Amino acid sequence: MKHDFYDITILGCGPAGLSAAINATIRNKKVLVIGAEICSPPLHKAQKINNYLGIPGVRGEELLACFMEHALQMGTEIINSKAEAINEAEGVYSILVKGELLKSKAIVIATGIPYKPTIPREEDMLGRGLGYCATCDGPIYRGKDVLLIAYSGEAENEANFMAEICRKVYYLPLYQGTMELDSRVEIINGKPGEIIGSDFVQGLKLKNGSEIIVEGLFILGGETAPDRLIPGLEIVDKHIKVNRQQETNLPGVFAAGDCTGPPYQVAKSVGEGQVAGLNASKYAGRK
Amino acid sequence: MKHDFYDITILGCGPAGLSAAINATIRNKKVLVIGAEICSPPLHKAQKINNYLGIPGVRGEELLACFMEHALQMGTEIINSKAEAINEAEGVYSILVKGELLKSKAIVIATGIPYKPTIPREEDMLGRGLGYCATCDGPIYRGKDVLLIAYSGEAENEANFMAEICRKVYYLPLYQGTMELDSRVEIINGKPGEIIGSDFVQGLKLKNGSEIIVEGLFILGGETAPDRLIPGLEIVDKHIKVNRQQETNLPGVFAAGDCTGPPYQVAKSVGEGQVAGLNASKYAGRK
Repeated sequence: MKHDFYDITILGCGPAGLSAAINATIRNKKVLVIGAEICSPPLHKAQKINNYLGIPGVRGEELLACFMEHALQMGTEIINSKAEAINEAEGVYSILVKGELLKSKAIVIATGIPYKPTIPREEDMLGRGLGYCATCDGPIYRGKDVLLIAYSGEAENEANFMAEICRKVYYLPLYQGTMELDSRVEIINGKPGEIIGSDFVQGLKLKNGSEIIVEGLFILGGETAPDRLIPGLEIVDKHIKVNRQQETNLPGVFAAGDCTGPPYQVAKSVGEGQVAGLNASKYAGRK
Repeated sequence: MKHDFYDITILGCGPAGLSAAINATIRNKKVLVIGAEICSPPLHKAQKINNYLGIPGVRGEELLACFMEHALQMGTEIINSKAEAINEAEGVYSILVKGELLKSKAIVIATGIPYKPTIPREEDMLGRGLGYCATCDGPIYRGKDVLLIAYSGEAENEANFMAEICRKVYYLPLYQGTMELDSRVEIINGKPGEIIGSDFVQGLKLKNGSEIIVEGLFILGGETAPDRLIPGLEIVDKHIKVNRQQETNLPGVFAAGDCTGPPYQVAKSVGEGQVAGLNASKYAGRK
């Protein structure tokens, strides 16, 4: 990161996030975009988009590339990562990203279509042996056995950290590619089936029937539901509640795009991103 | 017009109107766009637009042309005119345009930045000798003297019609170009100053001090405030009240773009146009 104190931090680099970014950049704000490698998986897969006014008949992937080029041309700072935790104190947000803590006056959430749980009962077991940040909750599992379900290579660092403090670390990768893991980490092959344990996690059953008995289960590198990331964020019908100014219920926190509700469409996202970017700029300017 | 019954009629051919049009066209709806010659005067004048994601560093005029090309390429029917009156009966809207009456299941209002009155006390005198449609109110002024303030050549037909029924028709053109007027119409040169008369129109004082004594005063060919065009439309703070689905308080009437409130920006308009176009399509599909 270029700075450790931003005016506006934008979560997500899809159409809404990048539109917020260019609009805030034009307003001379210090802007950071934190996004995944593929900025919008649904758009990336789209065969043909014909309803984003001014750019007819384009493949989703091309449109995303064109958006990214515009944002980079405007000088927007974009990092390929994700926010692991966000906290607010005295009107300033602290964001944990890549193990570093940065501060921001305002936040724009543009994280796309709401997160769907990976395994049955995932939501019920949250905080009962299941978590989304091993680095955060790790100490609770000192000397115990844990299993990490990993959606991306970024989880490897967490696995290696856990290997130092836990008795046993199992690692179930759901991505391709080479892995750099501590020799104490045991790789598990398979697909997650269901959680073992009624009140607290006691393990995970795989789809192939085998069982891994652990006290801690982490789901890493996937999406994190925004209301888990920012405590107190109001959700209605699985989407972030916003008004026509793209303000959420939390001061300084704006949201735009698919995460605010349907239609899940590019122009709607770009428009909301613009409004969120401009209003976040106003908010940061008053701070 | 190709048809006399449309699924969706869109008022305005700026970014919001054209975005609504392409989105409704994709949904296989019969769509008519009614717009002025210059679709969005503020965008047309813009030197450089840098915050419409995907099309950086473009002149407003170029962007408008690019939008129009996209809409035409999608087969959108666009006519250069304006709606003179709109009425609803049994859930169907009747729209008077170019002297013809067409019907539409749904309407999208995308008429841009709210209308500003031309002369002081214009709003107070509405219905007290002042009107926006000579053809509609004409008969009231049979045998009387009227003055028509005209913003475009389309008002010439109205002047000629009034010449047949009124005692005297004065015509104050606020546009350039040749005029085709009935020989009984008297052309006035000058700029409108203020309305004469306290409770009812008694005439108009020009900026040069001269006075024209009439019982009827019409302002023609300019913008018409949407709530005058569609009786009962709810306005808040000079803008059309909409929810996040771009629905107004009237069933089947949607609004998008600058007419719904700031920020007056292209991406915001295009996004709202998309949502309005998609929801109007749903509405028309249910009818």
